[in-house]
Amino acid sequence: CRLHVFLNYIFILTYIFGLIVGWVRSVRTQKAHIFLHVNDGSSLQSLQVVAGAELNDQLLTFGSAVEVTGILKKSPHQKQAVELEAQRIHVIGECDPVDFPFKIKERHNLEYLRQFPHLRCRTNAFSSLLRIRSEATAAFHSFFKDNGFVQIHTPVITSNDCEGAGELFQVEPSSVGDAHREFFFSVPAFLTVSGQLHLEVMSGAFSRVYTFGPTFRAENSQSRRHLAEFYMVEAELGFLRSLNDLTKVMEDMFKSTTEQVLARCVEDVDLFHRHRLSLQWGCDLKTEHEKHLVKHCGNVPVFVTDYPYRLKPFYARANQDPPQNTAAAVDLLVPGVGELCGGSLREERLDVLTAHLEDAGLEDTYDWYLDLRRFGSVPHGGFGLGFERFLQCVLGVDNIKDVIPFPRYSHSCLL
Amino acid sequence: CRLHVFLNYIFILTYIFGLIVGWVRSVRTQKAHIFLHVNDGSSLQSLQVVAGAELNDQLLTFGSAVEVTGILKKSPHQKQAVELEAQRIHVIGECDPVDFPFKIKERHNLEYLRQFPHLRCRTNAFSSLLRIRSEATAAFHSFFKDNGFVQIHTPVITSNDCEGAGELFQVEPSSVGDAHREFFFSVPAFLTVSGQLHLEVMSGAFSRVYTFGPTFRAENSQSRRHLAEFYMVEAELGFLRSLNDLTKVMEDMFKSTTEQVLARCVEDVDLFHRHRLSLQWGCDLKTEHEKHLVKHCGNVPVFVTDYPYRLKPFYARANQDPPQNTAAAVDLLVPGVGELCGGSLREERLDVLTAHLEDAGLEDTYDWYLDLRRFGSVPHGGFGLGFERFLQCVLGVDNIKDVIPFPRYSHSCLL
Repeated sequence: CRLHVFLNYIFILTYIFGLIVGWVRSVRTQKAHIFLHVNDGSSLQSLQVVAGAELNDQLLTFGSAVEVTGILKKSPHQKQAVELEAQRIHVIGECDPVDFPFKIKERHNLEYLRQFPHLRCRTNAFSSLLRIRSEATAAFHSFFKDNGFVQIHTPVITSNDCEGAGELFQVEPSSVGDAHREFFFSVPAFLTVSGQLHLEVMSGAFSRVYTFGPTFRAENSQSRRHLAEFYMVEAELGFLRSLNDLTKVMEDMFKSTTEQVLARCVEDVDLFHRHRLSLQWGCDLKTEHEKHLVKHCGNVPVFVTDYPYRLKPFYARANQDPPQNTAAAVDLLVPGVGELCGGSLREERLDVLTAHLEDAGLEDTYDWYLDLRRFGSVPHGGFGLGFERFLQCVLGVDNIKDVIPFPRYSHSCLL
Repeated sequence: CRLHVFLNYIFILTYIFGLIVGWVRSVRTQKAHIFLHVNDGSSLQSLQVVAGAELNDQLLTFGSAVEVTGILKKSPHQKQAVELEAQRIHVIGECDPVDFPFKIKERHNLEYLRQFPHLRCRTNAFSSLLRIRSEATAAFHSFFKDNGFVQIHTPVITSNDCEGAGELFQVEPSSVGDAHREFFFSVPAFLTVSGQLHLEVMSGAFSRVYTFGPTFRAENSQSRRHLAEFYMVEAELGFLRSLNDLTKVMEDMFKSTTEQVLARCVEDVDLFHRHRLSLQWGCDLKTEHEKHLVKHCGNVPVFVTDYPYRLKPFYARANQDPPQNTAAAVDLLVPGVGELCGGSLREERLDVLTAHLEDAGLEDTYDWYLDLRRFGSVPHGGFGLGFERFLQCVLGVDNIKDVIPFPRYSHSCLL
């Protein structure tokens, strides 16, 4: 009676008999033996399966799903520590090599893979990316949790049109005809472009809050750095008076998360770094400026602070430093990607903020925001980081569409 | 020269001198002394500040923000371990008690608080809720990480209309006029109602995946259990053949996350449980059935399995057990809330799935989904949990609008 144990093969070392499951990544046939590489998605490494030629089966193709029962042994080859000597191989999901769009041993380019959003996770590169993305997500949550931040789920649908931060998506029920339309929410509703204002609400009761979620821009762009749906990490810190205190947190976050990703995804990250030289960075005019600055500073991440006040949104805190008239705002530029992170102190002074909103004719729209300053206002500041750009930066990936599971951009919303 | 240390007062015990910051939760004046309770959002408990009457200031009102410098001492009262003997009190953000919509010592009902989504986080109840929600979010991420799941960011915008799972929101750029409209994504695009199908894509390469994010229904409902925007935890497990293996994971998750929340948010949860008796559960007809079942079983969580096949969506796996003709589907019903979690084995057999989709005339729409079964298909199953209902269940909160920072429902999208 054989012990059949379902287990993840990376934990298999303590077992002699086992049943492993996964997808065939390669098949090699010799006279007396066949060699398979089977991968279950838990790591880049596949398990080598060795079987007698009598176990061969024409259904054993690249991409097919298998269950293999066998004995785990120390491998005679240096490439792997162990291999599974198969006693039974069962193809549980066939994969016709003619129809399957990915071919064994062929290196498909990323643009080709993008046509198959439902299948590209089956390639080495994209499954590595997804493991890294998952680990990077956890790294950001860890950083904030370890530093006493409360996570806030800021809303996706909002009635704020967010001070014209680019084009917005509007939402309405699909079934409503165009005639006699009335708004589902009684007011026009949009997809959020940033959780900042909602986080600032929370800054009236919590010292440290953050959010990590999808944000949206309806821009007709095919850029390598922009998506219609992308993820932002945003944080807001109360009782904070200097831009230096803010950049310190931004720097700590960037270092801590990068270190965690590099430490926990060694193999997966290495796959990207090995191929890095073959990739080209995207660029447009504005990016060129940013790249120049970063290069000028020795190709390291650079903080740019104190932008002209009139260029910044209404919530940025005025430095009141004539004749320059700057705002306490900061951007973090990184090699290859340009702007990764932007932040500012927020204007907490009711009189300054009111005057500024009145000049812009926005005092009624943002009356609720003025309330935050009317009642127990505190000096505070915050920042937002583009999560996909973080991944591009750490991995050296040229196109933002290749670091998100299902990219959305103008003229494309596959699945 | 005095040492001014900015610190969170819960870590203050090792310091003698300190500067604390927060919002005034109460003010009590005696002849020679004033007593303040100051809260910085890190816990339900406030720090008691004692000051000589000469430090009194008419700006020291409920809701104002203060900086207090002083000496931390063992408190002579049993209620608290320590208190701060103030040497200087600085009101950094005023709060006019006449205009401020929350009054000291008044217990405002939840419906009243809902009118002030930008201020309600300043109440004890809602700041407790937000800390619990943050901890519960972390608890779900921990559970999945500890159990080897890869986190996938499934998209919010999708071109799937998801087999008519209720009313959808459609998205288009707000600036486009109604005339000569063409779709931004070239096809109609909707807000997701579930990440399941996108997770199933990943089940072609990973054994265990999950997603935790916002989902949407455009239903004209004012129910106590429904929102237009709510959070779902969804998981998909590959190489899984029995509904029992699935319910085991659902049960483990429910227990592990509940335990973590109860263990880490003792005071905050207690606040809810103390007031539980005054709350009433919402109910509609369907809920009544669910409640009856749960009550019948002794008021404990109940799994209901093997629903009629024709009532379930196309992806549910047919049990092929005539004459019953059931599907391998399961719901988890919990006391007070009803359906918390729904799952099923997914139909992995290409022929069965194809026939079923053909019957429904959907074989072209879901050709990409059939691809997942054409190439390396594996038996798999998954489930989705309503995160707000989880919080309602654990905390005994009647209305779902009170467990999410910014509730969205028909005719309401504040901020």
